[in-house]
Amino acid sequence: MGNSKPLIDYGYKKIFEGETENHLIQSFTDTITSRDGKKTGRIKGKGILNNAISAYIFEYLQSYHVATYFSEKLNDRDMRVNRVTPIPVDVVVRNIATGSIARNFGLKDPTELESPFVEYYYNADFVKYPLINESHIHALSLADSDDIRNMSMEITKSNAVLKPLFERRSIKLVEFKMRFGVHDSQIMIAGEFNPDTCRFWDAETREVLDRDRFAKDGNKTSKVYQEIHDRLIGMG
Amino acid sequence: MGNSKPLIDYGYKKIFEGETENHLIQSFTDTITSRDGKKTGRIKGKGILNNAISAYIFEYLQSYHVATYFSEKLNDRDMRVNRVTPIPVDVVVRNIATGSIARNFGLKDPTELESPFVEYYYNADFVKYPLINESHIHALSLADSDDIRNMSMEITKSNAVLKPLFERRSIKLVEFKMRFGVHDSQIMIAGEFNPDTCRFWDAETREVLDRDRFAKDGNKTSKVYQEIHDRLIGMG
Repeated sequence: MGNSKPLIDYGYKKIFEGETENHLIQSFTDTITSRDGKKTGRIKGKGILNNAISAYIFEYLQSYHVATYFSEKLNDRDMRVNRVTPIPVDVVVRNIATGSIARNFGLKDPTELESPFVEYYYNADFVKYPLINESHIHALSLADSDDIRNMSMEITKSNAVLKPLFERRSIKLVEFKMRFGVHDSQIMIAGEFNPDTCRFWDAETREVLDRDRFAKDGNKTSKVYQEIHDRLIGMG
Repeated sequence: MGNSKPLIDYGYKKIFEGETENHLIQSFTDTITSRDGKKTGRIKGKGILNNAISAYIFEYLQSYHVATYFSEKLNDRDMRVNRVTPIPVDVVVRNIATGSIARNFGLKDPTELESPFVEYYYNADFVKYPLINESHIHALSLADSDDIRNMSMEITKSNAVLKPLFERRSIKLVEFKMRFGVHDSQIMIAGEFNPDTCRFWDAETREVLDRDRFAKDGNKTSKVYQEIHDRLIGMG
């Protein structure tokens, strides 16, 4: 997106105005920050890989009739998306309890969950990302009852579709995060889906194949983005 | 319950074997501990008032066809209850967001919620009372799907019935906590309901009428238990 000024600059991605008022452009950069926010850097080519992976996943979900805001991959780093009114809730799905999550629940680390944990976090500037549930979403009017029900259905369906997709690529979909927005009164998945927002493990070795490698491995992390890309989309 | 040995001694109440294997005796003592656990003492007559208040509320709920484990008030301090298999989840209903709850959600303190927060906490020795949701309860097999649905329905119904009851006594039912258990395959409300487990405010003055007075007022706290008893049941 060259020199135009972004509407929102998240660092690792930027959002620009689209060609029409119904669209926005999501553009992926090479900037990376460790999950704890303590380390920042650049992974050459990460934005290109994240754009490809996210586009692939959105198209895959759409092929299973899961509504997403994705419209089209425009070029290496940019995708066109439908402009949505965002719901200020992050949805996290955990298929494996590990680390502090395993400890919190007195489970051995790791524990593969037959039925996933589906967690909602209130994502707004004036709160500290608290864990919330549907009663909070309803009471705080963050989404109406239909949207809450549809959000829950789309997440369950997404996991049911994505977990086996990754399984077939010898990847454990440990956890993933999704955001939602409303476009033309319809709720749809927004945000992105890639090693910056998910946790992936190699199914055999449990090697970490996501952003969490960055804190330890620095620039060598590029290989995990490439690995996820190649296993998912092919070496093309 | 004189000198027999309790099955469980919670301090503020004790659980004894009942006359049959289908029953237990719940016996309320005068022991009190502040909510933060830092201060302990005795409030003369508190157990008698808590037994009366809990029995009144259980009977009131049953009159609205809410299932509870309450069987009969036996004497001043003891009630007979059905023996249940406890579900290790505390359910907290908040009608007013105040203190840390208001801060967590960026709300002004206090905020009366049109629709309550209904929160589940995992109550077991080996975890630190984490906030959980229905997906955790399901994944951890703490209750089956029917029980989760019924628990949610009974809680919603209890609040719909109890909030106006207290309102008519000029008491704000700020929040309350309930436990559940299963008896003969039926889920029912267990535990107790009184100023030790609820937060009550005077509707006009917002004076605190529950256990939270103890940290500040010590033995004078007996008057708030009496006040809740008298407003609810009468001066009899």
